[in-house]
Order: sequence, then structure tokens, then C-alpha cells
Amino acid sequence: MPGTGTMGNLRKNVGEAGEFHLIERIRKILPASRNRDLLVDIGDDTAVVRLDERRALLLTCDIQVEGRHFRFDRTTPYQVGRRAMAVNLSDIASMGGKPTYALVSLGLPADFPVKSYDLLFEGMRDELLPHHAHIIGGNLARTEGFLIVDVTLLGEADLSRVLTRGGARVGDRIFVTGHVGASGAGFQALRTFGKKVPGKYREMVNRHVLPVPRVDLGRRISRSGVASAMIDVSDGVAGDLYHVCTRSGVGAEIHEDLLPLPEHIGEIARKSGTSVLELALHSGEDYELLFTVPPEVSARRIRSLPGDSRVPVTEIGRIVNRREGYCLVDSRGKKRPLTPAGWDHFRS
Amino acid sequence: MPGTGTMGNLRKNVGEAGEFHLIERIRKILPASRNRDLLVDIGDDTAVVRLDERRALLLTCDIQVEGRHFRFDRTTPYQVGRRAMAVNLSDIASMGGKPTYALVSLGLPADFPVKSYDLLFEGMRDELLPHHAHIIGGNLARTEGFLIVDVTLLGEADLSRVLTRGGARVGDRIFVTGHVGASGAGFQALRTFGKKVPGKYREMVNRHVLPVPRVDLGRRISRSGVASAMIDVSDGVAGDLYHVCTRSGVGAEIHEDLLPLPEHIGEIARKSGTSVLELALHSGEDYELLFTVPPEVSARRIRSLPGDSRVPVTEIGRIVNRREGYCLVDSRGKKRPLTPAGWDHFRS
Repeated sequence: MPGTGTMGNLRKNVGEAGEFHLIERIRKILPASRNRDLLVDIGDDTAVVRLDERRALLLTCDIQVEGRHFRFDRTTPYQVGRRAMAVNLSDIASMGGKPTYALVSLGLPADFPVKSYDLLFEGMRDELLPHHAHIIGGNLARTEGFLIVDVTLLGEADLSRVLTRGGARVGDRIFVTGHVGASGAGFQALRTFGKKVPGKYREMVNRHVLPVPRVDLGRRISRSGVASAMIDVSDGVAGDLYHVCTRSGVGAEIHEDLLPLPEHIGEIARKSGTSVLELALHSGEDYELLFTVPPEVSARRIRSLPGDSRVPVTEIGRIVNRREGYCLVDSRGKKRPLTPAGWDHFRS
Repeated sequence: MPGTGTMGNLRKNVGEAGEFHLIERIRKILPASRNRDLLVDIGDDTAVVRLDERRALLLTCDIQVEGRHFRFDRTTPYQVGRRAMAVNLSDIASMGGKPTYALVSLGLPADFPVKSYDLLFEGMRDELLPHHAHIIGGNLARTEGFLIVDVTLLGEADLSRVLTRGGARVGDRIFVTGHVGASGAGFQALRTFGKKVPGKYREMVNRHVLPVPRVDLGRRISRSGVASAMIDVSDGVAGDLYHVCTRSGVGAEIHEDLLPLPEHIGEIARKSGTSVLELALHSGEDYELLFTVPPEVSARRIRSLPGDSRVPVTEIGRIVNRREGYCLVDSRGKKRPLTPAGWDHFRS
């Protein structure tokens, strides 16, 4: 049927189109040739602009909407502030950058308490302080019924050390920091137990409520020169590694048994009617770093990455040829296709 | 009564507090001492960061909410896109900067048409193109019921030529570009006549729907070195000149007869039940530039500012001692206090 064969024609509104299709549309609308100082634009964790021969400027933003990204019956305004900043810090971290300055736009309902407003800013300030980064501007507007927090964060990186999603090569090993699935398990624990979450699950709940962006570790990885590509795990390992594969033109294999899981995740999965693999691969919001390393890099150099932080760095698979696909390998060596689906902010 | 004497205690929610009080609160929450490269932060048209010995980075953002800043029964998605970018360009212009890169965060209702989404981005793109500036990143989220467009715009300026609100000195003359009140009159014309606005008022309606940021003129003013302070007229001449006075620690006198008024503004004022002075001083959104010039600068240098643009540059008053107050002088030389009130995004 002429005129109905393309995806575009079937998608009349943004809810049907989905986030990735919408981003693709922007690429087509914007002029293809821009300027030579613009090194990375739409499609990575941050945009990258050359500042001079040595320095790169990183830019990212993240808009969070009450009712979709957070709810005040589960988190405090202070936590919402910290979280809104943390997710942006994680994007800067994934490029190997150092955060510098933030701008904050708020959409505020008229009845939003001034006390909560203060706490929101205190949360954002406190999340930036350890990195010597600061809020330097912003804008306020009134909205009806719900809060909107949009943070733009800038960072700086060594021009020669910026790590994008596009550098992974066949044979590279895949590493992830910390544990995967902790945030998703924490979310399920909150849903299952409400405010009476048993103490042993607290750590996972904390990871969900207050993610810990790996800013220092991201910088160590970038400066060490060992990594070929990096991304932060915001959509889930399966979704984010897929972004790396797409941008790098490669495939990947992840080994199920190698995934660094948090303690007690099995209990949470059972109690909430999901699976450990679902939480570890697809639930997202872990804000760990996933990076690839060429095969010749020594084990000693990898071991030295965390420095004093003691954050685990775990090998979970390897980059393969695109033709070999995108797979999960189980304990018996059996491969099955890995679904990249993560969180779609429009369809979900 | 102890504990009820401060303004803070009387303001329980952000609607009561008002925009300027809310911005003041942020200043108190953020750490006072930050870093030496941060030259201007909250409280000017843009933040200013030193990039190196020669260049300054300018940063600004503006969040626009459907139903408050625009309505789709009066403007098209393309115009909303252009406008959202134009108001940010005006902030860069008022510092004497050149726009470079933009990030766009959108909050989209699920039923927002994909076609409108495209037009929104085409509008933003087209507004940036003449300045060789580009959208390089962004973020999408779903909202319930209304569109939100938050633009962060970066710019660059000569470090020695950045024009803030804080440089006006007693004796300086006050100038404004273009006409004042045009946007407010255009808004009233739309309200009065709907879609059947007579042709002679079209120009004013256009100024309201699609403001023309004075980017090139702002740069010419900054590079000429004649100005001591500059601001863009977004809240109305009375409100914005007051910001200059507050930051510079001075007072001002504006001469009623000197205000550059658009043709036919008197008719619109009568028909819409307001006054010409109200439109010219308080209605805002003209996005002209208001700047101050030391007395010794020659008339010839001022006349040469517009270059080929033929945008009028008009002297409207002078900076006086703070003790002399903030006044409007009528045609008989009689002074009366000028009310700085402009548009408050929370109280209105």
C-alpha cells in the first residue's frame, strides 16, 4: 500500500513514536554540516565541543517530571534534587569528564511549598559540592499540578581522552563498575514492602533513591587510557551496551554468570514476581559505568583502575563481529539473542 | 510578633513568594565562594565563565510552558520553536555575545502530534541558523496535558567586552534599541481583534509572536566599547532598567516624551482599555536592548552603532544618584516615581 509502508506514517503522535524514533527525527531536521569544533552531538551521553588544543567542553541535560521520574510519596524534595543532579553527573562521568557548572530550570506548581523548594536546591547543591561544581544559573516557570526539574550540566575533559560510545572494536573485553540490577531491585523492594523494607534490602533501595554517579572512577578510566568506549548504565546493561554496539558498528556477548549482582537480589526478584536477569539487564538506573578494553591491556592495569575507591570492576563479556549478533551466554555456553529493550520514556 | 516579622515566614508556597524572592533564596542556599573563573552567576541575563585569557563562555536557559508562555490557538508549533530560541538569543545578545550551541529539553504529552514535534524543532533550527549556532543535545520526557520547552543556550564573548547589568554610573545616558511597547500592543491587538487584526497593526502582532533578538546589534554595541551596562527588555523597560539600577547601585530618570513608540500604539491602547505608557514601560517581551553610555561618548559613535541594520537607537533618560530615586519625567518636566513592576512568572 503506497504511503503506509514507512514507520513514520504509522506514527501520528509522540506516544506512539517512542523516544529513539523521536531522536532520529531531530537528526534529520538539524543541518548535517555544522562546525569543526563540534566533536560529538546528539546520540552520546554528552555533546562534546573542542575548547582549545587541550580541553573539551561536555554538555548534557536531563528533564525529570513528577509522577514519571519521581513521586513525593516515595522520595523527599532533597532526594529529588540530589537525584536530578546525579543522573547528569553520571553522563559527564561516562565521557571521562569533570563536572563544572549547572543550570537549573524548574516548572513549579503555585502551591509547591517554599520549604520544599529550598530542599530541592540544597539537594542539588550537595550533590555537586564533592566535585567542586556549582549551579550558576537557571529559570523558573509555573506549571499546573506537577514539578519539573531540568538540569543542564557542563563538564570538562582532556580532549585526547574523551570516551564516546563509538570506539569499541571486535575482541575488546566488556567491563562494568559496581553491581547491576541494584536500583531495579531497590525499586521492587519499595513497591513490595513500602516503608517497611527489611534492613538487608536497604542498600539496594538507597541505590534506587540516591544513585551514586561514578565521577572519579570515570575520570580514572579515561585518564588511564585503557578504555576504547564508555557509557553509563541508565537504561539497563542490555540497552546501554546496545547503544555502544550500534555506534561502534559491532556485536557483543554477555556472560550471564559474570554479571556482578548485589546480595539478596534473588529474594527480591522472587518476591516481586520478576527475574534476576530482568533486573540486572533491563531495569536500568544503576548509573554504573560500562566500558570496553582492547585485549592487550594487562590485568594489572585493569585492577588498578578503582584506586582507593574499592568499587569492583568486573569483566562481563566481549565485543564480537556485528554478524555474530547481540547475545547472552548462559552457564552451559548456550547463546540466545539479547533484547536491547530498556526504558522508553514515551512508550512506557 | 516574634517569628512573623520576616517576609520568608509569610510566604508558604512559591505562588505567594514570587519569582524575585525565589531567586534570592537560591543565592542564600548556594555556597558564596565558588571559583575564580566564574565571573557572573545568578542575577544577570547570562552566567559568564572565563574560558581563557581572551574568551568568555555565556550560559542561559529559559523554560516555556504551554498555557502560560504560549497557546496553540494563537501560535503555531513552528512559531513556538522560534520564540523559545529567540528569547534565549536575546539574553546572549544583551551580554554582547555570539550564540554558539543549544540544548533542548522537551516535556511532551503523549498525544502531541509528531508533525508538530518536527515543526517545533524546525522553528528552533531556523532561529539559530543566521547566527551559525546549532542544537547539539537534549532530552525528552513525557508530561500530562501540556508542552514544556526548555532551551539552554551557550554563547561566546570577548572577555574584556562582556556587558553586565552592573556597570551603569551616575551621569550615564540611557539608550534603547527599536521600539518599546510593540510586543505588548501586538498582544492586545490579538486579544481585541482575534484573527481579524487590521493590517496596520500586523507589525506589532509580529513582534509579539516572533520577537527579533538583537544579536548583531548587541555585538556591535559591546565591541564598540561605548556602553557601561546592558540588559534585554523582557520584563518591560521599567522592570529591566530597574535591574540595571539595582545591580549598579544607582537611580534613573526616564523621559516620557523620549520613548520610541511604534506607530498606532495609541489606537491599540485605547481600544484595549490600557495606556500607551503601560504598554511601553510595563508590558515586556519587546526583546530590545537597553544600555547605558558614559556622558563623554560622542553622538557620532552612538549614531554609528546600528551599522547597516537601520535599527533606531534612542536616548530615553539618564542614570542618577540612587538617592534621587527611580523616576519618570513628563513633558512639563514633572517627575513621578516609576514602578519597576514587570511580569512576575509566579504571581501573575
